[in-house]
Amino acid sequence: MATKKMAIIATKGTLDMAYPPFILGSTAAALGYEVQIFFTFYGLQLLRRDLSDVKISPLGNPAMPMPVPMPVLVAALPGMESMATMMMKQKMKKKGVAPLEELRALCQEADVKFIACQMTVDLFDFEKSDFIDGIEFGGASTFLEFAGETDICLFV
Amino acid sequence: MATKKMAIIATKGTLDMAYPPFILGSTAAALGYEVQIFFTFYGLQLLRRDLSDVKISPLGNPAMPMPVPMPVLVAALPGMESMATMMMKQKMKKKGVAPLEELRALCQEADVKFIACQMTVDLFDFEKSDFIDGIEFGGASTFLEFAGETDICLFV
Amino acid sequence: MATKKMAIIATKGTLDMAYPPFILGSTAAALGYEVQIFFTFYGLQLLRRDLSDVKISPLGNPAMPMPVPMPVLVAALPGMESMATMMMKQKMKKKGVAPLEELRALCQEADVKFIACQMTVDLFDFEKSDFIDGIEFGGASTFLEFAGETDICLFV
Repeated sequence: MATKKMAIIATKGTLDMAYPPFILGSTAAALGYEVQIFFTFYGLQLLRRDLSDVKISPLGNPAMPMPVPMPVLVAALPGMESMATMMMKQKMKKKGVAPLEELRALCQEADVKFIACQMTVDLFDFEKSDFIDGIEFGGASTFLEFAGETDICLFV
Repeated sequence: MATKKMAIIATKGTLDMAYPPFILGSTAAALGYEVQIFFTFYGLQLLRRDLSDVKISPLGNPAMPMPVPMPVLVAALPGMESMATMMMKQKMKKKGVAPLEELRALCQEADVKFIACQMTVDLFDFEKSDFIDGIEFGGASTFLEFAGETDICLFV
Repeated sequence: MATKKMAIIATKGTLDMAYPPFILGSTAAALGYEVQIFFTFYGLQLLRRDLSDVKISPLGNPAMPMPVPMPVLVAALPGMESMATMMMKQKMKKKGVAPLEELRALCQEADVKFIACQMTVDLFDFEKSDFIDGIEFGGASTFLEFAGETDICLFV
């Protein structure tokens, strides 16, 4: 039986949407899938060496479970993004959810291929030294060639 | 001809993004597809018995058609999320769009399988009694086995 | 070899999420794919004749690279959405990224089929004259028939 394949286009850079590419990528790799993740737009933030700036925002997302009900204007106060991020991270730690860095490393150990979108790297003036080792740089065209052969292709 | 299959990963819990999984799910089921929806992260909100807390936010979404142009700071005032939600619901009702609960029930009647992500259930301290009947609880690994056999797989 | 096919469901109407459907659509068409894009919910904004109202918002997206760090309350001030949009457009122009209108025209020249979701057109009271020429109007059901035969199907 041919190896199954999964492609993910990771376009978001918030803490909540950072998890799906790494969780799905590492899970699929564990099931024997060949996996490639294409990081573009804000998704490039997930390839930075330092992930401490990856945050969540309670703004514009009334679906986020909050420890206390909070008016929107309070959620907009300085420091609330950092506070919500800290609380989410503590909750995840307490519940045994692996931190992002760990899931990302797990993907790389399982040979999940990480591709940074060259166009976005140029657009946002990223330096190659901002990113972790072991990644490739490429365009949508090359990525689509792989995506067209996959069993699962997701836009996150 | 083999039965066609569709998998949806529902990660959002806002009113606007609550519709796509249920509309696409029920439509595909009506076309004869076997459909499974995996509810994870904020998407779990869509499996609650009471959907009255599912809201939209005009914040951070300048693409939302508003009845009157509204400065961002006004959109952030207390009560604006509830007001925008109420107005959207009235508009939908007037235009004959079925309410969420109805579309969800339609999916279940058509044997669309609902799976709640166990990891997120634990993370956000949901109780099984918060959810509607007739759903399953599972992990990404089991879901991917189904997703890998589908004709359409979407990340909402 | 059969022609490869790609389907995209475009649901977002912000400047950042306006790019992926048109970039992926035109790239796939250039690779010989048959491409259909279904514009629904806020995605309908991308079919308007005038795209000058398509904006980005720094609110609720802490992953947006900002030229200067900015407290959330400042980002909520009147005019900040327009300013962030203007800055992003200037950056894109300087870096040689084609404007949205151009990428959209490129898709149409390459026979990418644009379908406007009739239900959303009715819901948001759009007029057919609001939209560009050469598009079709249809429902999820017709679109899924195409989507079920594709090699790549994405929900943006």
